[in-house]
Amino acid sequence: MPANPLETILAPKSIAVLGASSHPTKMGTMQMLNIVASGFPGQVLPVHPTEKEIFGHKVYPTIADLPFAPDLALLVVPTKLVPQMIDDLGKLGTRHAVVVTAGFKETGPDGQDLEWQVVDIANKHGLRFVGPNCMGVVNAHLPLNTAVSPLCAPPGGLSLVSQSGTYVTQTNYYLGQRGVRISKGVSVGNEASIDLVDCLEYLGDDPQTTAIGLYIECIRRPKEFLAVASRISRDKPIVAQYVGGNEFGARSGSSHTGALAGPDFIYDGLFAQAGVIRVPTIEDVYRLGDALAHQPAMKGRRVAVLTNSGGPGSGMATTLQAEGMEMPSLSPETQAKLRQHMPPHAPVGNPVDLTFHVDMSTMTKTLPRILFEDPQIDGVLLHGIMDTGWAAMAHQVFSKFIDISRQELDQMMLADLSELTPMPWAHGKPLLTSSFFDRADHAVDSLLAAQIPVFDSPERAARTMALMHRAHQIATRPAAEAPPTPPVAARASELLAAPTLDEHQAKQVLAAYGLPVCREEFCADVDQAVAAARRLGWPVAVKGCLASVQHKTELGLVHLNLADADAVAQACRKIRQAAPAAGLLVAEMLPTGRELIAGVTRFPSFPPLVLCGLGGVLAEALRDTALRLAPLAAVDGLAMLESLRGRAILGDFRGMGAVDLAAVADLLVRLGQVALNHPEIAEMDLNPILFVDGQPRIVDALIVKAGRN
Amino acid sequence: MPANPLETILAPKSIAVLGASSHPTKMGTMQMLNIVASGFPGQVLPVHPTEKEIFGHKVYPTIADLPFAPDLALLVVPTKLVPQMIDDLGKLGTRHAVVVTAGFKETGPDGQDLEWQVVDIANKHGLRFVGPNCMGVVNAHLPLNTAVSPLCAPPGGLSLVSQSGTYVTQTNYYLGQRGVRISKGVSVGNEASIDLVDCLEYLGDDPQTTAIGLYIECIRRPKEFLAVASRISRDKPIVAQYVGGNEFGARSGSSHTGALAGPDFIYDGLFAQAGVIRVPTIEDVYRLGDALAHQPAMKGRRVAVLTNSGGPGSGMATTLQAEGMEMPSLSPETQAKLRQHMPPHAPVGNPVDLTFHVDMSTMTKTLPRILFEDPQIDGVLLHGIMDTGWAAMAHQVFSKFIDISRQELDQMMLADLSELTPMPWAHGKPLLTSSFFDRADHAVDSLLAAQIPVFDSPERAARTMALMHRAHQIATRPAAEAPPTPPVAARASELLAAPTLDEHQAKQVLAAYGLPVCREEFCADVDQAVAAARRLGWPVAVKGCLASVQHKTELGLVHLNLADADAVAQACRKIRQAAPAAGLLVAEMLPTGRELIAGVTRFPSFPPLVLCGLGGVLAEALRDTALRLAPLAAVDGLAMLESLRGRAILGDFRGMGAVDLAAVADLLVRLGQVALNHPEIAEMDLNPILFVDGQPRIVDALIVKAGRN
Repeated sequence: MPANPLETILAPKSIAVLGASSHPTKMGTMQMLNIVASGFPGQVLPVHPTEKEIFGHKVYPTIADLPFAPDLALLVVPTKLVPQMIDDLGKLGTRHAVVVTAGFKETGPDGQDLEWQVVDIANKHGLRFVGPNCMGVVNAHLPLNTAVSPLCAPPGGLSLVSQSGTYVTQTNYYLGQRGVRISKGVSVGNEASIDLVDCLEYLGDDPQTTAIGLYIECIRRPKEFLAVASRISRDKPIVAQYVGGNEFGARSGSSHTGALAGPDFIYDGLFAQAGVIRVPTIEDVYRLGDALAHQPAMKGRRVAVLTNSGGPGSGMATTLQAEGMEMPSLSPETQAKLRQHMPPHAPVGNPVDLTFHVDMSTMTKTLPRILFEDPQIDGVLLHGIMDTGWAAMAHQVFSKFIDISRQELDQMMLADLSELTPMPWAHGKPLLTSSFFDRADHAVDSLLAAQIPVFDSPERAARTMALMHRAHQIATRPAAEAPPTPPVAARASELLAAPTLDEHQAKQVLAAYGLPVCREEFCADVDQAVAAARRLGWPVAVKGCLASVQHKTELGLVHLNLADADAVAQACRKIRQAAPAAGLLVAEMLPTGRELIAGVTRFPSFPPLVLCGLGGVLAEALRDTALRLAPLAAVDGLAMLESLRGRAILGDFRGMGAVDLAAVADLLVRLGQVALNHPEIAEMDLNPILFVDGQPRIVDALIVKAGRN
Repeated sequence: MPANPLETILAPKSIAVLGASSHPTKMGTMQMLNIVASGFPGQVLPVHPTEKEIFGHKVYPTIADLPFAPDLALLVVPTKLVPQMIDDLGKLGTRHAVVVTAGFKETGPDGQDLEWQVVDIANKHGLRFVGPNCMGVVNAHLPLNTAVSPLCAPPGGLSLVSQSGTYVTQTNYYLGQRGVRISKGVSVGNEASIDLVDCLEYLGDDPQTTAIGLYIECIRRPKEFLAVASRISRDKPIVAQYVGGNEFGARSGSSHTGALAGPDFIYDGLFAQAGVIRVPTIEDVYRLGDALAHQPAMKGRRVAVLTNSGGPGSGMATTLQAEGMEMPSLSPETQAKLRQHMPPHAPVGNPVDLTFHVDMSTMTKTLPRILFEDPQIDGVLLHGIMDTGWAAMAHQVFSKFIDISRQELDQMMLADLSELTPMPWAHGKPLLTSSFFDRADHAVDSLLAAQIPVFDSPERAARTMALMHRAHQIATRPAAEAPPTPPVAARASELLAAPTLDEHQAKQVLAAYGLPVCREEFCADVDQAVAAARRLGWPVAVKGCLASVQHKTELGLVHLNLADADAVAQACRKIRQAAPAAGLLVAEMLPTGRELIAGVTRFPSFPPLVLCGLGGVLAEALRDTALRLAPLAAVDGLAMLESLRGRAILGDFRGMGAVDLAAVADLLVRLGQVALNHPEIAEMDLNPILFVDGQPRIVDALIVKAGRN
């Protein structure tokens, strides 16, 4: 396997800069100066046709004049120059570039053509590049920073891949104020040569990356994304914001499941399947990513809350509960230990509420140690540590009455955090904190310096703790190997050769792959129908069987609960009246009460999409459905069922006995296999699926072939 | 009506301080010094048994020694001294106090007794007080600040009432950094004399309050809260965080609806009914409250987004869509105007994406003006204004190569916001912004100084805009006068005199108040049942009628779809076998397909609670329900239905025709009236309610009397 091109792009020994000049406010110049100022340890070689020297760096008039082939070229030049420059670089022997220049695909068809031209030239030379239309790359550890602003925090473990340049290069101040430490960052731009998946692959293997944050507008290789992210997420947490849900608009399929498959819903399923934690804001990408990259894993649900005020403690408690976490009552032993260091009436049950205190010593030493040592606690939330921030406030008052300098007051207030800050690692449990002060407060600054996140909202700290637990569950989830797809079933291919399939044919396709269809017989006339009913056992259903008919009930083609031969005969007559061409399908009656639906739909560039949901009229109104990409593993099917809001109905609900979830998961796995083996299928609807002794039975099925509606 | 005591408490001309001394770090001293330092314009009179002078203020040895009765007394003294001091103050003629002292109800029964004692003494003198166990009050306009830290922002329009002292007094730095301007603040503590509702009443009438933020752990007077908040919320937005949802644990009622009525759910209904916007974090209380207090109303859903980067613009767009807002394509006219000031390929459709720019002049002048002037736009979101924050970053790089001072670079970058900042008021449309810089950036600081909120997350700005629109919808909602409760129905009282009621009796109670019960007859024997069936029309249902039986179907007491006399006779026999004492209830059969449930339950200190939800097994699994407090207005009933996730099913769904929502709302109004007229009813369950031509029919009903289970 060839080395990932990002290994060189993020750690070059030499960089040619095309587009820098002596104008300090030109983008290319700013980027070059930032590379130098940030301390890049390699050579920087500007190329410019007329300049002789740029801020002390010798300039080469053309690429051909460079003394050797630099590891990396940074292009910040007019759009039309890019193809030739890439060719010149290729000829020189440079194999890696970052094309910042815009004006390509994003501008329309002409730009797209130009972009393809650049890719062709690059491919000819085996040259791989980030961009075009990007803001560059960052490796905080080297350091290398091709962006226009300096990093404001020390190097760390969170790596970022972003389809918006801003989120890799324009938020450094924000990240610095919040102590978010970056390892690598790639602004992928138009992804003409190197895309999100390449970046993920590289970061998965990068020992300096401990968590990954993604900003996504569109995944161009969903199948590969799924494979790579699924593997990495067992090892390193991946957090993603996806904003492309309204990029394509809702897709209106010809069948029920098709209509549900808007892109947002598809990406939700993809992320769940890949073990990617989807978050709604870029702030979550950064702050959750930071917590995941730099704190011990949250291995359980049990949180202890330590606070100096009831409000933040209650806010944390309420959030923890809403997020499915636990805040157990502390054991009598732990409470007794805490009590020795607490005011008489202060609560020690959890939250532990020290009540308002200016002296920080108990809050930073004894109390958190007792909580960390409690084996019934998996992680600690702490609100209210502060020192000089408070002193600054108090000094405004005191200085009017007392002769005390700000420095003296600061010194009096200074908290000693040396015992607290090592606790998370000593105990292997995470510590998240919140404060209404910011980095200007020495205590907050000290926590951030020790890689302990400080949130400006108690509720956000609590929510982040819950998401950290989810990351741990993802990392430790059961293996999810999709079983091998069986060979194409000859019977299915034969049936699918017809332009349309009726209900019975659709079920035969499914049955050919082992899906559990209900017992039924296709009959030509009333006599056959009555005989079939006798074989199936009373009561039966009789349905008119016609290709491409979707609303059978409304058309009078469905007759249920027929208890004797007369009823069957009458039903057959009614069906023939309504649709003379209809075949007669006689089927066993199955118990109702709860039903599932399942289906397959397709979406451009995606593998077949398998859906399932609760059935019935209310479920349709509520759209309680889940989606995964084929091929599915059995655990994917189980996770789909688990994700349904109304999943309680599948348990031992109202005396109905529990559904065999493994059997339903198997049905979903096989449904995906049918779709993989038969690209001629555009959509499938299994609706309803009923249950006999907890076992699923497909009662009705529809298969729509590609190219038809 | 007597004046609200808060009029004096928040604007006293003189304050006696009990508990201050010459020790500057004592709480009472800090509070007194803060009152003086913050510029309180009235007299401050410390009372202390031994001190002669406290930081320049003459001290009075006892309350009786005070030269006159101060308007307000601030008590920060040992718990046991409070009763006598309140008595002394009362004797002197002081009628208002703030009792900061803790150690009362919150500590247990002894503390509760002491608190009652203090209240009795205060009442004797007509003295009203805030607290005990509180952190004091703030009036930023006077100014008066009895808290321990100074305000950090100019006075404004957001008033706060909090059951946690921290949120009125310990977040001043946080608020200052974010430009959140406070008008009044009350830390209500134990609410022994003055509670949340008193505060709301005061703030509703306070001309300096333009929005109200609440932090709530428990509402002690829900009925009064509802009345006051409902009135105020038409005039001033109210935002509340409620964290008491797990305070009591889930209440397990004896009936279905009872089990749903956990406190969190109850408060949700109360807030919705009162027009209070419930938010999940204190940050939302402050930031949304600030936007509501200081920006024009968001009168429609249509938002224009102006950004200098695709990522934040897309984040805003996705959030707006998720929150039900609109981001319309801008008109060709508006796009043409924008295009004149935009780079060639930059998107002008909405979001308007200027792409990365260091020159702020277009972003702060022409572009926002064009957007504000567009009549198809109701509000503007803007991301990316920055100047000196960016200069500070750039200077780190440039200063290594160029001889330029930080001040020179700042001056070069300085944005002129003088055109932008008046736009919201000039056009009567809100402007919310986001930036990854903070107040240290001159542009951010200028926006905050102009009362334009700046969020550190594009998504939060967008979400706040959506909530501002909700506030506008609340303010302009239709009048919600509950109709007068009818007189007690004699027939209902007669039936309710029995210890238990069977299904038929329960329905008669409901019918006595005009609720639409299904047609049915109570029969003693088979002959009567068959005759009744003939009168009702075939098919019919026959049910066994027994008091206190809940699972009739499981017991074989329900027989549906009986089409002839034989079937009725057989059903009657089966019922008598299963339950010899049962009466026979013969009822019309109603179409199924969709069903509602409704009910009443009670919760300590609350008026009767009316619930409704979607019926059926799946709805039970999903708990899709709504709640309001009786008496309901018709609009309350409509709002309940509108709030159901599965409300689509009530429309013209799957050919079933639309449900008459007004008729269902009327049913809910009357259900509340039954509960108000009959306190002997503990719980009612109407399950299911079916529909004939869209009109509701109560098919089964259960009434549980108080004191029974």
